[in-house]
Amino acid sequence: MMRDWFDKHQDRLQQALTAATTRAAWSPFVESPSQKHHPEGAAEQGKAAFKARLGQDFPLPDHPGLADFFGEEISPYTGEPLGIRYPIASVTELIEAVRGAWRRLNQTTLEERTGLCLEILDRMAARSFENAHATMHTAGQSFVMAFAGSGANSLDRGLEAITYAYRAQVDVPAESLYTRAFGKGPPVTLQKRTVTRPLGVAAVITCASYPAFNAYPAIFANLMVGAPVIVKPHPQGTLPMALFVETARQVLVEAGLKPNTIVLAADRSEDPVAKDLCAHDDVRIIDFTGSQAFGQFLETAHPDKQVFTETSGCNAVILESTPDLDATLSAIAHGLCLFSSQMCTAPQNIYIPADGVFEGEVELPYGAVLQRLNNAIDEYLEDAQVAAGVCGALATEFVSDHIETLTEEIVPQSPHCRVMRRSVSYEHPQFPDARTATPLVIEVETDQTDLYRQEHFGPIAFVIKVKNRDRALMRATTDARVKGAISSYLYSTDDEYIAVCEDAFFRAGASLSINLHRQRPINFQGAFSDLHVTGLNPAGNACLTDLAFVTGRFRRVQSRRELPLEEIQ
Amino acid sequence: MMRDWFDKHQDRLQQALTAATTRAAWSPFVESPSQKHHPEGAAEQGKAAFKARLGQDFPLPDHPGLADFFGEEISPYTGEPLGIRYPIASVTELIEAVRGAWRRLNQTTLEERTGLCLEILDRMAARSFENAHATMHTAGQSFVMAFAGSGANSLDRGLEAITYAYRAQVDVPAESLYTRAFGKGPPVTLQKRTVTRPLGVAAVITCASYPAFNAYPAIFANLMVGAPVIVKPHPQGTLPMALFVETARQVLVEAGLKPNTIVLAADRSEDPVAKDLCAHDDVRIIDFTGSQAFGQFLETAHPDKQVFTETSGCNAVILESTPDLDATLSAIAHGLCLFSSQMCTAPQNIYIPADGVFEGEVELPYGAVLQRLNNAIDEYLEDAQVAAGVCGALATEFVSDHIETLTEEIVPQSPHCRVMRRSVSYEHPQFPDARTATPLVIEVETDQTDLYRQEHFGPIAFVIKVKNRDRALMRATTDARVKGAISSYLYSTDDEYIAVCEDAFFRAGASLSINLHRQRPINFQGAFSDLHVTGLNPAGNACLTDLAFVTGRFRRVQSRRELPLEEIQ
Repeated sequence: MMRDWFDKHQDRLQQALTAATTRAAWSPFVESPSQKHHPEGAAEQGKAAFKARLGQDFPLPDHPGLADFFGEEISPYTGEPLGIRYPIASVTELIEAVRGAWRRLNQTTLEERTGLCLEILDRMAARSFENAHATMHTAGQSFVMAFAGSGANSLDRGLEAITYAYRAQVDVPAESLYTRAFGKGPPVTLQKRTVTRPLGVAAVITCASYPAFNAYPAIFANLMVGAPVIVKPHPQGTLPMALFVETARQVLVEAGLKPNTIVLAADRSEDPVAKDLCAHDDVRIIDFTGSQAFGQFLETAHPDKQVFTETSGCNAVILESTPDLDATLSAIAHGLCLFSSQMCTAPQNIYIPADGVFEGEVELPYGAVLQRLNNAIDEYLEDAQVAAGVCGALATEFVSDHIETLTEEIVPQSPHCRVMRRSVSYEHPQFPDARTATPLVIEVETDQTDLYRQEHFGPIAFVIKVKNRDRALMRATTDARVKGAISSYLYSTDDEYIAVCEDAFFRAGASLSINLHRQRPINFQGAFSDLHVTGLNPAGNACLTDLAFVTGRFRRVQSRRELPLEEIQ
Repeated sequence: MMRDWFDKHQDRLQQALTAATTRAAWSPFVESPSQKHHPEGAAEQGKAAFKARLGQDFPLPDHPGLADFFGEEISPYTGEPLGIRYPIASVTELIEAVRGAWRRLNQTTLEERTGLCLEILDRMAARSFENAHATMHTAGQSFVMAFAGSGANSLDRGLEAITYAYRAQVDVPAESLYTRAFGKGPPVTLQKRTVTRPLGVAAVITCASYPAFNAYPAIFANLMVGAPVIVKPHPQGTLPMALFVETARQVLVEAGLKPNTIVLAADRSEDPVAKDLCAHDDVRIIDFTGSQAFGQFLETAHPDKQVFTETSGCNAVILESTPDLDATLSAIAHGLCLFSSQMCTAPQNIYIPADGVFEGEVELPYGAVLQRLNNAIDEYLEDAQVAAGVCGALATEFVSDHIETLTEEIVPQSPHCRVMRRSVSYEHPQFPDARTATPLVIEVETDQTDLYRQEHFGPIAFVIKVKNRDRALMRATTDARVKGAISSYLYSTDDEYIAVCEDAFFRAGASLSINLHRQRPINFQGAFSDLHVTGLNPAGNACLTDLAFVTGRFRRVQSRRELPLEEIQ
């Protein structure tokens, strides 16, 4: 069965291997939810499937923890609890469950595991509408983003991890022959067998706001190397992960493997299990997406385990010069509004020289630039339909609380800053009770590093009035070096300055996006082309996807057997 | 210059890339010191070059620490100090030196670094005779082993690391184009640049007995990814590393790079610097070969650094059945004698079933097997020339002391064991004062794990009388799982038992050599085919060489720049 799936998906695998080499744009999945790209009724069925989950126990046959169901998700759009309850198993029960499933997984060949993973991916692609509703009503993403970003774009990242895990393992052939003479004797032939083995059980800890993008690569990388997986979702973002686990378990059973090869570690927010789970001796591989503090705790607490993290940084924009200021500001404003800036790639710290910004030959004063940035933001908010599609909703009330604290307490008490633009709720056209917020923009001076040199999760940006462009570069790269950065943005028409910036960001261990405009979301990251997280600054080490993302998860054992002379003659 | 070297060595690189894929036997270096394979006078010049070092300061122009020279090497063959003194620099001086050299190294391209490393390798190959004498009179290896094992075989391992580091980096192209449309707009094209960057400064800590085999791969893997290297040799094994560092520095200067891209951290055994060196914040990559205790200390002390270790294990032999017992025992005895069992691949724990061993259809009693093992060892010792060539000398007096302690104190006090064969000095035909020792063989019962379940460095083996073959397998795999194993050996004519053993060793995270005979040293490991150290048991994690050995040393930074419409039309 798994071998059949490998053959069935062979074309896709080969195309993916090519894309990873050329790094050109490629995706086999559909980003658009438009009806014409999907089977008739797919949209309606997906929505109905989501609705049927509400208020129910989530069924996972043979899963540990079926004696205790619990769930606490609340829709950011309706403000109502989803009422979906998941099995709550102890760490011990989870580990015992995967222990019982592990050996069978390790008896599979690389081709079989590849077939298995590609089939799971395909089944998830077929659930894109259901997954989009699930993501929308947990993470707060707009439907369009939930469909594209947590659908096709995340499936791409999953496929990318499968592709790299395949390449990394196929790198040493499973069987080889070695023939040579030693001294004056006849040649000796050794038959060698090489088998990959995972470090141990894998724990994948996901976040509330964008779980699929990091979870899919981690889960697939683990299954590909033969590691059973315990998925620990955020209590506010369990459903998208539960759907994935459900699909994966169904495919595992069809393949003749045990469903508990992958299990869900749902927990209560007041009784979190991540720490204990990661500390369990059987768990040898940890993937974590979330706060920098917990990520760094995991990185240092478990030196004997392989820990992959994606946490957070304070992403900079340097606005130095542009051929078209409104186009540039529109691109930046889009980055501030998109999913209410709850993406790890969202810009936060906008460095603008005090002397102003050149638009072609004309130097526009600093104040005018701020005014036009303000206008650029307005453009995404004027039409409620547009605002809803771009901004979505806030994943948790922690974000709205933080906006309020900043606005009412911290900024007024800080000497060198002021609220340039207040955050307000916008009216969502479909969901009047949605937890929404427009961007809060704070103007600060450069010495207020205590405020802006940290991540502020949500629609919060700082305009930093900086002496000149060199100072902007120095500050922005220091932010990245000290506090991390996942994406950094530069707008300049000066090739010499661009080269200096590129070099400086590279030396700070940060990647750089230059002059992104043209209706393209500036924080879009494409699998097979964009490397996500460098691992050279404090924003994490889980690069999506390079060989290091997969090679650390497994090792090889080898046998070499001397062939009797008669067998080789 | 570096680019020229890349072209010059292109054939070798391509052959190496192929060998790493097929895993067939391949080496471009010469194992034999026989005159006919080398330029006229090469042997004599190498010996003279070694002799000219004795009693001198080792010159390393521009190296830090030139105010203080010190050396304490003593030849295991003559018992005399070599009198060679090396510059002694503080950790601070070493770090400052490599800091000054680093940036220039990071401006090189992958092709340039590859050319540089292949040229260094070639220059070292040309110094094989000098290196062999240096290794012989520090490590105690016989001349033939020092020439082959610390020459060609180690150069192969270095080339292998260069090859993998090349593949891992070339995996993502330095430049690529990405074109796609977003929504209904025109296609956008991004120009992407990807640059590899090392984690930081690399420290390579080498052992006394076989430094080149692990040092070459580590040093080359680091230089290849752009990390400057601090080589910390064992105070008794500094000369072979100093020769390498000298050559590398000369080639660096020719290439227009700074010599302090690689430096030597010679130290005094009473004032060791390894711990402080590894703790320095700039050091982000550590390669260590040596004791399991210090290796495990490094693995846990520095969770934020990339630590590669090769330490030690207790390598097992399971002797179950054989078509030709004398051939089998001769192969095992050779493993016990070769370089006085001071190799990490040397067998130590020989499990023999109490019921005896089948030779074809005949079951030979346990006692008879022991007697014939004893005879097989004698055969390597009868002729002094043969003994000298096989056994070499003991690297340090710690080894001879440990043999004496075991023989005189520990074994007599242990209830379930006896000395089956005493270790004595054999008379070396060329060096009457050589520190030599024949194998000490101790017979133990299975419950004496406190004695045999640990590495005993040197010519020390245990014959373990075990109830039956299943018990032998259980014990041997437990040893590997709990205390580590680098090589494990099985002799059996029963395909079914072989399959069970293979599976059990694999699950214990250990590799297995099966039925190795025929004049082939059983613990020979060939680059490009044999993986050395699995990383799945306590014997270390530095696998020579797979992708994981190189991918963890570097990360990538990327820029993506939107091309103005006119440029792409």
